[in-house]
Amino acid sequence: MRLYVTPASPWVRRVRVAILELGIEDRFEFAQTKWSHKWATRAVEHRRDFLEATPVVRIPALVTKDFTLTDSHSICDYLNGELGGFRLLARDGAARWQALADMSIACGIIEAHILRRAELLRAEHERSADFIAKMKDRELRCFAALEKRVAGFGATFDLAQITTAVACGYESWRYGEDWRGVAPTLATWYDGVARRPSMLATEPAETPQT
Amino acid sequence: MRLYVTPASPWVRRVRVAILELGIEDRFEFAQTKWSHKWATRAVEHRRDFLEATPVVRIPALVTKDFTLTDSHSICDYLNGELGGFRLLARDGAARWQALADMSIACGIIEAHILRRAELLRAEHERSADFIAKMKDRELRCFAALEKRVAGFGATFDLAQITTAVACGYESWRYGEDWRGVAPTLATWYDGVARRPSMLATEPAETPQT
Repeated sequence: MRLYVTPASPWVRRVRVAILELGIEDRFEFAQTKWSHKWATRAVEHRRDFLEATPVVRIPALVTKDFTLTDSHSICDYLNGELGGFRLLARDGAARWQALADMSIACGIIEAHILRRAELLRAEHERSADFIAKMKDRELRCFAALEKRVAGFGATFDLAQITTAVACGYESWRYGEDWRGVAPTLATWYDGVARRPSMLATEPAETPQT
Repeated sequence: MRLYVTPASPWVRRVRVAILELGIEDRFEFAQTKWSHKWATRAVEHRRDFLEATPVVRIPALVTKDFTLTDSHSICDYLNGELGGFRLLARDGAARWQALADMSIACGIIEAHILRRAELLRAEHERSADFIAKMKDRELRCFAALEKRVAGFGATFDLAQITTAVACGYESWRYGEDWRGVAPTLATWYDGVARRPSMLATEPAETPQT
């Protein structure tokens, strides 16, 4: 299977951490993609195989011999269900819905994070200070919500925890440590899981420039 | 259970159609939300119960007595797995991954559609013509990809088909019929499923203005 990646994407990191936690990295060929900083408003040049793999032209994209998945939600679902024996997310029942509840907040942070990044990459005359403030507020509000939930996190570093840890890591990398002020208990939890080999092997880095 | 909705959101419609297809609408209280057109760049005033329900401040949001889900992916997963006996998406195996492959393309259309709408609602001096063109290109590219896949659609109006139909319906409503030119077979399929009671009961309408 081929997975299209970049070290600057939290959605990619979420998938890569899940793969490492499941110990199935030898099943994948990791194909780097390049994103010029004009990606925020314009189409970017890509290798033909990537463009053919995904009409969405987005990463992560997972290409198997039978199908292509073009978003991290469905890729994580496949990793967990087909390759992971449901070790990262319960198959159904209350444990699944509670994990999805945490995960949907963490995904809200990552979405806001990326939209804020795209806004900051715009030409100044197309940039909205209101929008940037709105996204930062959403991120901090979601971190505050996760702060109330971290005491309920289970022993397994599951998909909800992976997504939360990725949200924390990219927030620190791009935007600094403000989030720790609204989520001190979560920050302590994060400092622990950030030392896991899967997290150390996937630390954020700037996207390769064309 | 309480579901927060608006008739202008394709993500909400996807959930509402799934509920109607499963015949479980009597399990839900539907709570309307209001979105001033400044939502694209600024926080919007909301009822306290909605703000307390979801730190993401996004719809759809499903509030049960045990948990809250704040995105349509996890809500659809819950509807299908807990309330729907996996009638709208196979529990696992090849049928599930093929459906997710279709669905991830349809979700790509809906995401691009909403980002384009948000851009059009911006003040003119903060608007990017490049970005609007990029989103339109993505939508049409994804419609062209679904055109090649519609022959493989199964007999059940499942989550992948629901998401695809919602993508078609909102595209026509907001942006006209250009998509039919790149996806004529899909358009014929859509004209058939658009007559289903679940689709007729959830036709798009402008979001209520505060």
